[in-house]
Amino acid sequence: MTIRTLSLAVFLAVVATQASAQDKPVTPSSVLEAAPATAWKDIAAEDLMVMTLADGSKVVVQLASTFSPQHVANVRAFARARWWDGSAIIRSQDNYVTQWGWPDEPEPKYPDAVKAEPPAEYEQPLSKAFRPLPYRDAYAVQVGHVDGWPVATDGQAQWLPHCNGMVGVARGLNPDTGSSSQLYAIIGHAPRHLDRNLAMAGRVVSGMDALSARPRGTEALGFYKTEAERTKIVSVRIAADLPPTERPAFQYLDTQSPTFAAWINARANRKDDFFAVSAGAVDICNALPPIRQKP
Amino acid sequence: MTIRTLSLAVFLAVVATQASAQDKPVTPSSVLEAAPATAWKDIAAEDLMVMTLADGSKVVVQLASTFSPQHVANVRAFARARWWDGSAIIRSQDNYVTQWGWPDEPEPKYPDAVKAEPPAEYEQPLSKAFRPLPYRDAYAVQVGHVDGWPVATDGQAQWLPHCNGMVGVARGLNPDTGSSSQLYAIIGHAPRHLDRNLAMAGRVVSGMDALSARPRGTEALGFYKTEAERTKIVSVRIAADLPPTERPAFQYLDTQSPTFAAWINARANRKDDFFAVSAGAVDICNALPPIRQKP
Repeated sequence: MTIRTLSLAVFLAVVATQASAQDKPVTPSSVLEAAPATAWKDIAAEDLMVMTLADGSKVVVQLASTFSPQHVANVRAFARARWWDGSAIIRSQDNYVTQWGWPDEPEPKYPDAVKAEPPAEYEQPLSKAFRPLPYRDAYAVQVGHVDGWPVATDGQAQWLPHCNGMVGVARGLNPDTGSSSQLYAIIGHAPRHLDRNLAMAGRVVSGMDALSARPRGTEALGFYKTEAERTKIVSVRIAADLPPTERPAFQYLDTQSPTFAAWINARANRKDDFFAVSAGAVDICNALPPIRQKP
Repeated sequence: MTIRTLSLAVFLAVVATQASAQDKPVTPSSVLEAAPATAWKDIAAEDLMVMTLADGSKVVVQLASTFSPQHVANVRAFARARWWDGSAIIRSQDNYVTQWGWPDEPEPKYPDAVKAEPPAEYEQPLSKAFRPLPYRDAYAVQVGHVDGWPVATDGQAQWLPHCNGMVGVARGLNPDTGSSSQLYAIIGHAPRHLDRNLAMAGRVVSGMDALSARPRGTEALGFYKTEAERTKIVSVRIAADLPPTERPAFQYLDTQSPTFAAWINARANRKDDFFAVSAGAVDICNALPPIRQKP
């Protein structure tokens, strides 16, 4: 590696930095390494969706069951009926979304447990667990975190912002809210103008590059033109339904913990040898709660 | 396509929407379609860098010559000496950067015209051409536009923000500012904490997916491990040096024009049939000045 490469490695190594020496600055990764086990909360196996693609990659999505209960109930119902098995990645538009589901009309018959026209679920009353981020946001009155999720609020309602890695429910024109039969993941800069306009199904917690590093579709809006361009979905399962040996297990950093507050502070105030200027702030989409595999 | 697909097409079709009927809402694309020719400004051929990759793709970068004159002078000198020909894409880290240059130490000898240790050029005095964006920013006192570029400011200095598609100069630890021998493009959500910490070389104006849709590297920080993983760079040229028939020509929307102000307003206030709620704001990285091929 060149010096430049090595040095960039330093510059971008926040996640990998060791904080063993007393005189090393506090970094986001040093905060995480020092976190007590109690700062990490298990994600319920019922809230993890596992999508296996024909190229062998696996994408794991944490389902936003407390934000969009009916849309998430539909996700579980589609998965449990194996309804998505054999469908495909149908679209990848640069700096926007990758989307999956059945490419052609009509879609296969919905499982009985699916509610075809769920309520909007675009926003919810602000949770008492809300912890504000002490920095400005271009789109919302305030942003912060609730139970391991990024949240935007007007002071009364809360909603999940369209950050990179967040998963939403495709839909038609109002008042359609989408059935969850087609989902999309944000793969570029956060298109926050979509906030409160679509139901959010969750957040990718593993395998994001299987969605983001995919060749873009050549049709309008990044849709793939041919069957050959579409990567098939082998299966979509809820982790709780998998045999224990195949079941992924993840944890999120408790957003009410002192560790999380320290992590936010370290994200906003970079102090390692690379930085000339520290931002003194971090935006909500650069402050998605850390996720780890359960040790 | 399914209804959902069609409808999502509507929802995401802002760029493609026609505004032929009187009763259609003003959208970002209808504003652009109605723009007078005078609202578009030519980008100088001296300010366009054309990178051709071994897979046949071409990436065109508008060079930020007024923001980082010495780093851009180096880019031109490297290109004119054909110094990058045979180098490679060496790194792709998800939701962060794709980087290119020579993978191994020592780098080939620099061309004589390259200044190996340029000044920082991280910020400049605020331009009189600055037009503020009337919305909040998480990182800077104010953001806005100067001569077709996104800009952040503290009221006195200005700097280019690390938005998706912006190109920066890799460097080592302070006080190294990077020679421009290795460049990177932002491929995910804007890592704005890098602002004022690296010299900015420009912005990708064409071929972005050749950088963003690339398989991520498997080494730490997304570096590619093997020669086979690295896509070779066939050539890097300055457009002014290409034969007229091969020379790309691009224009940016004049950021001091009434059309640009109307475009910003339409970006912040989406009013087509898809939207239930209009954001009433747009962040600087969702407001990069429109670029088009010169008609």
